[in-house]
Order: sequence, then C-alpha cells, then structure tokens
Amino acid sequence: MTPDDFRLHGHTLIDWIADYLEGVEQYPVASQVQPGDIRASLPEHPPTAAEPFANVLADLDRVVMPGITHWQHPSFMAYFPGNSSYPAILGELAAAGLGVQGMSWVTSPACTEVETLMMDWMQELLGLPERFRSTSATGGGVIHGSASEATLASILAARWRVTGGDINHTGDTTRLVAYSTSQAHSGIEKGLRIAGIGTEHLRIVPHDASFAMLPAELERLVEADVAAGLTPFWVCCTRGTTSTMAFDPVAAVGAIAQRHGLWLHVDAAMSGIGALAPEFRWINDGLEFADSYCTNPHKWMGVNFDCDLFYTADRTALLGALSILPEYLRSAAAESGKAIDYRDWQIPLGRRFRALKLWFTIRAGGADDAIAMIRRHVALTQQLADWVATDDRFQIVAPHPLNLLCVRLKAGDSATDALIERANATGRALFTRTVIDGAVACRVSIGARTTDERHVRAAWELLKELAAG
Amino acid sequence: MTPDDFRLHGHTLIDWIADYLEGVEQYPVASQVQPGDIRASLPEHPPTAAEPFANVLADLDRVVMPGITHWQHPSFMAYFPGNSSYPAILGELAAAGLGVQGMSWVTSPACTEVETLMMDWMQELLGLPERFRSTSATGGGVIHGSASEATLASILAARWRVTGGDINHTGDTTRLVAYSTSQAHSGIEKGLRIAGIGTEHLRIVPHDASFAMLPAELERLVEADVAAGLTPFWVCCTRGTTSTMAFDPVAAVGAIAQRHGLWLHVDAAMSGIGALAPEFRWINDGLEFADSYCTNPHKWMGVNFDCDLFYTADRTALLGALSILPEYLRSAAAESGKAIDYRDWQIPLGRRFRALKLWFTIRAGGADDAIAMIRRHVALTQQLADWVATDDRFQIVAPHPLNLLCVRLKAGDSATDALIERANATGRALFTRTVIDGAVACRVSIGARTTDERHVRAAWELLKELAAG
Repeated sequence: MTPDDFRLHGHTLIDWIADYLEGVEQYPVASQVQPGDIRASLPEHPPTAAEPFANVLADLDRVVMPGITHWQHPSFMAYFPGNSSYPAILGELAAAGLGVQGMSWVTSPACTEVETLMMDWMQELLGLPERFRSTSATGGGVIHGSASEATLASILAARWRVTGGDINHTGDTTRLVAYSTSQAHSGIEKGLRIAGIGTEHLRIVPHDASFAMLPAELERLVEADVAAGLTPFWVCCTRGTTSTMAFDPVAAVGAIAQRHGLWLHVDAAMSGIGALAPEFRWINDGLEFADSYCTNPHKWMGVNFDCDLFYTADRTALLGALSILPEYLRSAAAESGKAIDYRDWQIPLGRRFRALKLWFTIRAGGADDAIAMIRRHVALTQQLADWVATDDRFQIVAPHPLNLLCVRLKAGDSATDALIERANATGRALFTRTVIDGAVACRVSIGARTTDERHVRAAWELLKELAAG
Repeated sequence: MTPDDFRLHGHTLIDWIADYLEGVEQYPVASQVQPGDIRASLPEHPPTAAEPFANVLADLDRVVMPGITHWQHPSFMAYFPGNSSYPAILGELAAAGLGVQGMSWVTSPACTEVETLMMDWMQELLGLPERFRSTSATGGGVIHGSASEATLASILAARWRVTGGDINHTGDTTRLVAYSTSQAHSGIEKGLRIAGIGTEHLRIVPHDASFAMLPAELERLVEADVAAGLTPFWVCCTRGTTSTMAFDPVAAVGAIAQRHGLWLHVDAAMSGIGALAPEFRWINDGLEFADSYCTNPHKWMGVNFDCDLFYTADRTALLGALSILPEYLRSAAAESGKAIDYRDWQIPLGRRFRALKLWFTIRAGGADDAIAMIRRHVALTQQLADWVATDDRFQIVAPHPLNLLCVRLKAGDSATDALIERANATGRALFTRTVIDGAVACRVSIGARTTDERHVRAAWELLKELAAG
C-alpha cells in the first residue's frame, strides 16, 4: 500500500467509523450468528496474491458486522461498559502510526513520560492518595492492559515482599495464603493460580447481605492460618464487584491487613472511575490503606480498551518481583535512576503508546465529559430502579448505588433465566445473567457512551413485556 | 467531539501519519532528550476544561516527536525490528472504532472467528505442523500481546500437565525444574519466576560456539535432577536468540523432552516469521516435537505491535491451566463445545480485535510483501557482513544466517563500547550493545520496512569512520 493509498483508504475508514458509531442503533445489540458462521464466510486458505484494499473494507460490512456484538450500542447493558470515544480512537490511531515500543524509557522517552504524567493527572482527577503519585517517595503508577494483569502484578509484588525477595530464587509459594470474598472477580483466582497460589490457599471470606466482605471474618481466617503455620500475604477488596457492584469496607480490612502484614489490593476496575465526580468520591474510602489499586478508563471513561490504571504505594516490591535486566536492555538513563523503565512494572516486555488515548481523551473533553456521562448513567440506573419497584413481579436483589441494577422475577430461577434469554434474543437490548448467592439474576449495566433515558425505558418495557408472556 | 469533528481530525491525523512515515528519515533515529524533558514540556496538572483538538494534534509535533525514538526509521538497527505497515495501522484503527471485547466467542463472534482463521492461515503460510491448527484434534492457536505472555502461558500449561492439574489446587511448584541456555530471552526467567519457579530451578544448559544448546548437556542436567528427586517439566528452545540470533537444535532437544516428559516450548519471536520464505523454512526444523511455539508478526511482518502468534499442540493443558468460569461468563455457545473462548487461552480476561490488523496485512499484500522484505533484509545483512570482513579492525562474533549481525572491534570492549555510544549519539543510525560470553558486541539488526542498501551502507560508513577516531 502506498502512502497515497493509505490516505485514501484511511479517510474512508475514518468516515466508516463515524457512520458506524452514529448509526449503531440500527443493529441488533447481540450478533445473531451461530458458531462457525463467520469463518464459513471467509476463504479457508490464505490469499496467494494481494487484493484491492476496497475489498477488505467491504468485508468489514459483509463479514465482520454480522459477527459483532455491539459494545458501543446504547442498549448494550451486558457484562460491563467498554465505552470508547472519538478522541480515544484517534489516540489509538496515533499510537499505531508512530509504531514505537515503550518497554524502556530509552526506547522512546515520550511513551514513558506522557504515561507517567497521565497516571499523575488521573491520581489528581480521581482524588487518589498522594502516595500513588510518581513523585511520591515510594509509589507510582503504570498503564496495564487489563485489571487481570494489575491483579497479577499486585500478587507478585506481595509475594516478593512477604518472602523478602526469596521467592525469586526459591519459588516456594507453599505457605502463602490469600483472601477475598466469593464476589471478587475471576481474575483473582486466576492470578493466584498463575502465581503458584492454589485454590486451597485462597480463603473465601464471608460477606454480608450487601455482598461486602465481613472484616471480622477475615481476621478470624487470618488468625487461624497463622496458627496453622501458614503465611497470610494478600487480600483483595473490591470496590464495585462484577456480579452486583458491591463495595468491600477497605478501611476496616486495611487495619487488619496492616496488623498482620498482608498486602492490600483494591480492585475498582469497573467503578473506580466514578470518583471523577465529587459526589461519588466515597468509592475511594479507605484507599490510604491500599498497597495497590486499579481502575479502568476503558470501562467508564471513554478510553477504548486496553487502558487499566495500576497504582502501587510500594514500587520497590513491584520492581523486585518483575525486574530482569539482560545486557541488551541496559541504558545509561535507567542506571542514572532518573528514568522509569515500565517493562519492570508489568508482565510482558513490550508495550504500546497507550497513554496517547488517555491524553487525547482528557484534553478533548476535560474530565467534564466523563463526569457528565457518569452522572447520567447513575441517574438512569436509579430511574430504572424506581420503575422496577412499581412492578410486583420483579425484585431488586442488591444495593445499586451506581450504574448496575440486578433484578429477578419473583417467579424464580427458571422464569428469570427464560426472561433473560428471550430479551437478549430480540436484539433490542442485551443483559447478562448472573447467580447471586444461589439465585439467578439479570444484570442491567448502564454505561454505553450514548445511552439515554429512551434506551433504558425501552429496555424496561422489553423486560416487562416478556415477563408477562 | 462530534462525529463531524472526528471526521475532520481523523482525516488530518491519517495525513499526519502518512507524512510522518514518508518523512521519517529527517529525524535523528534516537530521541535526543534527557529524562524529564518531555514531562517538563507539558502541564503538571490536568486541564480543567476541554481544549480545541487542533492543539492536541499540534502537541504531537511540539511535545511527542522530540521524545520519539523512531522504530520505523530505515536506519533503526537497534533491539529488534518493530515494523508496521499501512494496512496494519488501518486494522488497528478499525479495531478501535468497533470497540468490541473478544474475551468470549459470544461477546463478539467475529473477533474470535477471524482470529482463529488468521492463526490457521499463518500455520499454512509459515509451514508449521498441522497439529498447531485449530482444526486439529488437540491443538490450536491464539494471538497474544507479546512473546513474554506466550512463554508464560506455555510454562503454565506445562506446569498443569506435569502435575495432572494438581497445581491449580495445591500451588506446589517446589520440585519443578526448567531448562534453557543463557541466550534465551529474559522473558523466560521472568515467566518462570511469575509461575513460582525460582531461578534456583532454572538450569542454564551450556551452548556450543554458535550459541546453540548442547543436547547432551541438557540430558545430563535432566538426569541429575531426576536423580535428585526433582521434576524436570519445561525446556525452551530458541530459534533466533535475542543477543546473536542463535538457533537451538529443536529435534535433538525434542527427543530428550519426549523421553523425560518435558514440555518443549519453541520461542521464535524474532525469526519465526522468516519461514514465510521457502528458503528460510529451516527455521521450523524440529517443530514437530514442540508442545508450544510462538512468533511475532509485530517484529518482521509489518503488523504493528501487539501481535504474537502462540500455538500449542496440547490445548487441554493450556485450558486446564487458564480456564476459570464464573456465572457471568457462561454461555450456551461455549457449553456446546463449538465456540472458542479465547480468555481461557491467555493471561488477561479482556482482548482487542487484534486479528484485524493481521487480516488486513495479509490481504493487502498477500504474503508476498513480507517475503520480499524478509529477503531484502537478509541479503542486506550478508552484504554488510561482506563489508565488515574486509576491515581488519572489526570481527564478526556470531553466525548470521538471517538479519542480525554482531560485530566488535578487535581493540576490545572499551573501544567497542565507545564506538556504539558515539555512533548512536550521531542520530544517523541506532545499534544495541550486548555482551556475548563476556565480550562487548554491537548488534546490527536490519529489519525496518523501508531499510535499503543505502541505509546499511551509511551505517557501515558511520561505524568505520568512528572506529578510526
């Protein structure tokens, strides 16, 4: 492809994206294809010669679109939001165009320094503790691809600290014990497994009726483990769980963690961005106790995936766990101590210039665009809750302080299951099924960039209509 | 930003990228800034209101460009290639515009099915074993972000297999032992550490004069470990090491791995893509013994980072190690066995539609563009070797069958160090220092998309000129 071809096709693709996002409501929210359909519409074997690029773009419509479940659709109320925005898309494009590697400061200084500054800007915008700032004595932040990676990095830093670094040499994880509730994200158990902490050493701490961790139960478990000669090392508090958006009591857990020398990780992947709005800053309560923290602009701030903010108050432990320095990665800048090499803050070596999309988004909209969107989503969720409360067939099964509402039919699990299945099959909205303490529920997650009252109203009408059927 | 603003700024940015890539030679290859310079040119605190987007784009030139080390510069001969191409940039843009999550088949079927097909297309194009194909009885492939993640996934699958899955429950890694040469990538040691295999249980297998693993030495180490009651479980062969591009003997190692029940991972992150050209298909020698394999289109095929192809012949072990199924991720498609959920093939949960950039690249250029580029790079490397051989001050320190040449000054380490430092400081080319069996060497890695004879000639003239000084 020549540069002129790129200009031509690039302009076409930019317009295609604008058309797509402006017209996304015309599509069914969920793809209607069956397994194998998309592959069957493409050649089984690779082309032997170049094709006109117009054919490729045409196949976006012909082949790809039928296989898309539209996360940017305003009636997408499934899983969690993954909202993008126009400035963020341009940030991703700029990063792809520059094509640089940010594994070390020296491999492209701007890639590192813009990222560090964005982490500090977000620390301010979110009102996070000063000790997470890169300019603090012991902390700092980095952009990870996902909260799963942040969780794993946190476990590895904790593992390093509790063993005084011995873990790097001995690999002995057999006495380490971790703690979370049953409501914590699946990435917690997965991260622990990866790090050599088997599920036998993940203690499920009981939760209260609002699905929040019971600190007294945590302390009881920790003490029993200590008495058994084990080494409690890591506890995860979630601020906004995946299933019901429950909030663990961080300060109370933090006091226990301090007393017993546990690393406290706070996972606010979904909800943390809500703290942009002053009235939701309670999301941060207790963070002054956290050793590490993560939240995802790629969920609720219009910065397209992947963009997870990972902060730690103990960068020595993180670097101890993740630094490896072969000769071909040495640099004078790094050895001067004045430059950050982010490869030592993450699992992979390579890294894209992800900070550009965050920078573009913040500058193009200030924090104001995100705050307005967050407020709208929360208000719509409360509106929906009011509507649900007027219908005797439904019940709300968990607190809903932000943008997730979990409902079920009083008629029971199979009725609720059938309702979700039939509603999703219409393509008019998309919800996610979950099971909360044994009972089936329908999660209504309100977080797409363009979701407005009419979409929430239509979703509610759909649920009411199908519940009657 | 309105859709119309996006069209306007998007067109501008597309043109900016074309201008940048067409004019990249005007820049010094390496950024000339000092630590802190880039940050100091930006506001320390976030903006309180939205800014005109034209300002943001202007800051790409004013702030970002001085901090860029130009991986797309034809005189970039440092580290490894990270070449991009116009179709791949458009693929990344399309993925950002669609903004979908590919964690499960059901979350956007096209994201999964195009990826599976691309992995199979690449299996054909590279001439890889059939048992890596998704249509095989036991294998399959997935796009990872980087070879480090592929390495880690391979270690986890091996760990699962050798413990019969017990690892997920007990987390006991204390008897497991892994093997590689000193020339293996730093991601090997890092991946093992993450998985709870300390460096005390990573055996460094001696290598021969060409830096390739000595199979007899491997067998000796494995037998000693077995005799000591340990459990050898994973061996990594590299096809194209980072320091010198050495090639471990996979078939000989594979026979030993089979005999002793080790998982054989083959890391061809840099060189594997060379197998697109039939005359370099020897890179694949012995792969029929491999349990897993990875290579990076983001290094040598014009598909911008991140795009690592990870194949396994034993998907049961991989899924055993990495599957976690909470209620909110269940789906009928997955339970039917007809759909792949790639979240279970990787470390993170979330995933972008990375297959688009591979699809766009293959269709826009066939494999022919990549093959022509690979052949040119290899020929230029051999040409450079011929030139170096005529200069008595230099010596070539390792075999150079492909696109990496390692040279040093006979005058010794400090002379070679000084040469690299002075050459890099000119901004006219960029090389990487390494240490090979104790001796300093200059790596000349020839792999940028537009590198041609005049760039290699100029790099050689630069080295000759500064060696004289």
